[in-house]
Amino acid sequence: MSATPEVASAPTAGAGPLSGVRVLDLSRMLAGPYCGSLLADLGAEVIKIEVPGHGDDARHIGPFRNGESIYFDILNRRKRSVTMNLKDAGARGLLLRLAGRSQVLLENFRPGVTEHLGIDYAAVSAASPGIVYASISGYGQSGPMSLFPAYDLIVQAASGLMSVTGHPDGPPTKVGESIGDLTAGVFAAFGIVTALLEAARTGRGAHLDVSMLESLLALEVTVQSQYDVTGVAPARVGNRHPVSTPFGVYQAADGQVILAAANDTLFARVAELIERPEMAADPRYVTDALRTEHEAEVRGAIEGWTCGRTVAEVVDAAERRGVPTSPILDYGQAVVSEQVAARHALLHFDHPVAGSVDYIGQPMRFSSHSPIEPVPSPPLGADTDSVLTELLEVPAEELAALHARGAL
Amino acid sequence: MSATPEVASAPTAGAGPLSGVRVLDLSRMLAGPYCGSLLADLGAEVIKIEVPGHGDDARHIGPFRNGESIYFDILNRRKRSVTMNLKDAGARGLLLRLAGRSQVLLENFRPGVTEHLGIDYAAVSAASPGIVYASISGYGQSGPMSLFPAYDLIVQAASGLMSVTGHPDGPPTKVGESIGDLTAGVFAAFGIVTALLEAARTGRGAHLDVSMLESLLALEVTVQSQYDVTGVAPARVGNRHPVSTPFGVYQAADGQVILAAANDTLFARVAELIERPEMAADPRYVTDALRTEHEAEVRGAIEGWTCGRTVAEVVDAAERRGVPTSPILDYGQAVVSEQVAARHALLHFDHPVAGSVDYIGQPMRFSSHSPIEPVPSPPLGADTDSVLTELLEVPAEELAALHARGAL
Repeated sequence: MSATPEVASAPTAGAGPLSGVRVLDLSRMLAGPYCGSLLADLGAEVIKIEVPGHGDDARHIGPFRNGESIYFDILNRRKRSVTMNLKDAGARGLLLRLAGRSQVLLENFRPGVTEHLGIDYAAVSAASPGIVYASISGYGQSGPMSLFPAYDLIVQAASGLMSVTGHPDGPPTKVGESIGDLTAGVFAAFGIVTALLEAARTGRGAHLDVSMLESLLALEVTVQSQYDVTGVAPARVGNRHPVSTPFGVYQAADGQVILAAANDTLFARVAELIERPEMAADPRYVTDALRTEHEAEVRGAIEGWTCGRTVAEVVDAAERRGVPTSPILDYGQAVVSEQVAARHALLHFDHPVAGSVDYIGQPMRFSSHSPIEPVPSPPLGADTDSVLTELLEVPAEELAALHARGAL
Repeated sequence: MSATPEVASAPTAGAGPLSGVRVLDLSRMLAGPYCGSLLADLGAEVIKIEVPGHGDDARHIGPFRNGESIYFDILNRRKRSVTMNLKDAGARGLLLRLAGRSQVLLENFRPGVTEHLGIDYAAVSAASPGIVYASISGYGQSGPMSLFPAYDLIVQAASGLMSVTGHPDGPPTKVGESIGDLTAGVFAAFGIVTALLEAARTGRGAHLDVSMLESLLALEVTVQSQYDVTGVAPARVGNRHPVSTPFGVYQAADGQVILAAANDTLFARVAELIERPEMAADPRYVTDALRTEHEAEVRGAIEGWTCGRTVAEVVDAAERRGVPTSPILDYGQAVVSEQVAARHALLHFDHPVAGSVDYIGQPMRFSSHSPIEPVPSPPLGADTDSVLTELLEVPAEELAALHARGAL
C-alpha cells in the first residue's frame, strides 16, 4: 500500500486497483499462476520465483510457438521472473528478505513442501509480519487426503461435478477446461484481496488455504439444493433444463441451437415463433410443469420448425421475437463475436519469441480504471539481478557468487 | 470500515474478514445472490432488497421442503430481508439513504433497468460517494448484445465452453451446474473486495461491471492457448487428457476409475501397478508423447488389469503405489468423503420452516478467523422495519404509511 491517495474522478490509466501491491509468486503450472495473472492484470507487481535453469514446469508444456509455451505465456503475463534455488540457504535468505518487502506470497506446492524448505507461513510471517500468505492445493492443507496428488481431472471426479455433467444415457463427463485449477485460482485471488483489505484495517496478515476440491464443491449450489431435498445424488440431465420446458438444445438444419423459455410469456413467444400460436393456450402446455411433462411433444413441435431452418435463421427469428437464444459457438467463433469485439475482451501482447499472443484478461471492469497495458511473460530469470538490486540492494559481488554456485 | 483495529493474533471467532462492510443486495436468482452469500460468509452485513409480496423469484423455484425453496435458502444464508417497491418514490428515497450507510450495492437487473428506476450508479454514488456499485449481467453493461436475455445455458453455449465439453463422437455438452452464473458471482465478489481495498486507500468508489460471458471466457485458458497456436477451435476430447497418457478414465469391474500419470516416473509406477513392469522400459512407451501415440495399447494393458478389480480395489492399490487416482464420485458420495468431513466443508443451518439445510460455504480458509456461525436465510421482509428504524431512524408513523400504500 505504498501509493498515495488520489482524488481524481477520471479513470486512472495504466495503474489498476491493486497498484502498490507486491506479490511473490512461487506457484507453478496452472492454479497458482492463474491467480497471479489476475492480480497482475489488476495492477499488482507480481514477482515470479522460479527454479534456476528449468523454471516453472509450464514453460515445458505445449502448445508451443517458436519453442515458446503459449500456455505459459498467457498464464504469466505481466510478471517479472527471478530464479532462486530455495535449497540454497543464501537464496532462501534473500527470498525471506523479499517477502519483507512484499504484501503477498503465493504458493501451490504440495502441502508440507514449504515447511521442508523453511519458507512456510511461520517462517515467512516472522520475516514479514502482516504478510498475506496464500496456499493453493488439491485437497487443502489439512485432512487425510491433503498429501494425495491432485490433478484437475481427479478433482472434477472427486467433487461430483463429472457425475452431473453429460447425457443421461452417457458416462460422467469432464468439463473441457481445467475448471478445478482455475476456480481455485479465482477463489485464491479473491481471498488474497480480502485478507489485504483486513490487513489494511488491522495490520494483521493471514495464512489463506484454498483447495481445488472445495472450490468446485462451493460452486455446486443447484446440485446441493437438489441433494438436500431428495437425499439422492442428482443424475446427469444432458443439455436440458431440469425443470423448465422448452429450455434446451434443438436440432436445426445445419447444427444445434438453443431456445430458452422459462415462463409462460416466453412460451407464448416460442409458439408464435414456430408458427404454432395455438399451443400457448393448449391445456397440455399452459404451465411450465405441464410442458415439462409433455417435453417430447413440445420438442417435436419446435424441431418441426427448426429442422427446416439454419441455426442463423432460427437465432435471428428468435431474437426478433425476444426469445432467449444462442448458437452453440466453438471457441474460435466465441472470441470473434461482435459482443467480445465491442467489449475489447480479447487482448494481446507482443512476445519477443512467440510473437503476438492473444488472451482473455481478468473479466472485471472498474469505472475507476481504464484497461491496463498488456505486458508479455518474462524470460526465465530476466529480472533476477534487477529485483535483488532494486529491492534489497544486494551487492554485485554477492550476486556473482550466488550465480556462480547456482543459487540464482 | 467501522470496526476498530485489532491486535490479537488468535483467530477472531464469528467476525470474518469483511465484518464492518454493509452490502445492499438488490440481486435476484443466482449470480448476484451467490456473490452476496460469499460476502456474507466472510462477515459482511448483507441486506437483501426484495419486491413486496413476491420477493426474489428464487423463493418460488424448487426444490422445496415444507413449501420453502432450499435453492433460495442456500443462496441467501446470513442475509437480512427488506422489502421495497422501487417504483415508489418514498421507498426509492429510503434505498438511496440506505446506500449512504453502505459500502457496497449489488444488482443483476438487465442493463438499463436501474437507470429506469433512478438507482443507477450515477444516482447512488451521488447519494453515497465512495460506494462500490457492482452490476452482474449476461453480456456486460455495454455492447450490441448487452440487452439480450442470457441464461446460464445460453452463456455456456456462447462462450465456447459447451463446444469443448463432451466426448469426441458426441454433441456439445452443458456443464451440469450453472457455472456461468456462479463464476460471474465469484468474480463479482472478488471485484467488490478489490474496489473496497482501493476505496480504503483513496476514498474513491467504482462501478464494477461483470458479465457471465467474460467470466467463462476468462477461465478458458488452456483452450485459448491451443487456439492461439493452431488457429483451429479445439475439439472435444472427452475424459482423456489431450496430451498425456495414461491420464484418464478406465473401466473397472464395477464402474470407472481415474488413473493419472503425467510423467515417466509415474508411468513406471503404473506399469508396476498393473503387473506389467516391463512396459516402463519398452521403447514404445518411454516418453509421454510415445505413450499418447500408442494410447489404445496403453489403455488395453491398463484395462486388462482394472477390469478384473473393483474401483475401490484399483484406487486402494494405486494410492499405495503413489499413482494419482480417484473414483468418480456422485455428489452424495463427494460430500461425505473423509476429506470433506475432516475439513468441515459441509455446513448446515436450522431454518424455522425448512428444518436443517446443508450447504457448502465459501471455500477460503483464513488462519486469522475461525469459521463463522451459520445463519439461515430470512423470511421475506423480516428485517424491513428493524433496518429502516436502526439505520435511518424512520419514524413509526412513516413506516406505517409506507406499508399501507405497498411501498414496503
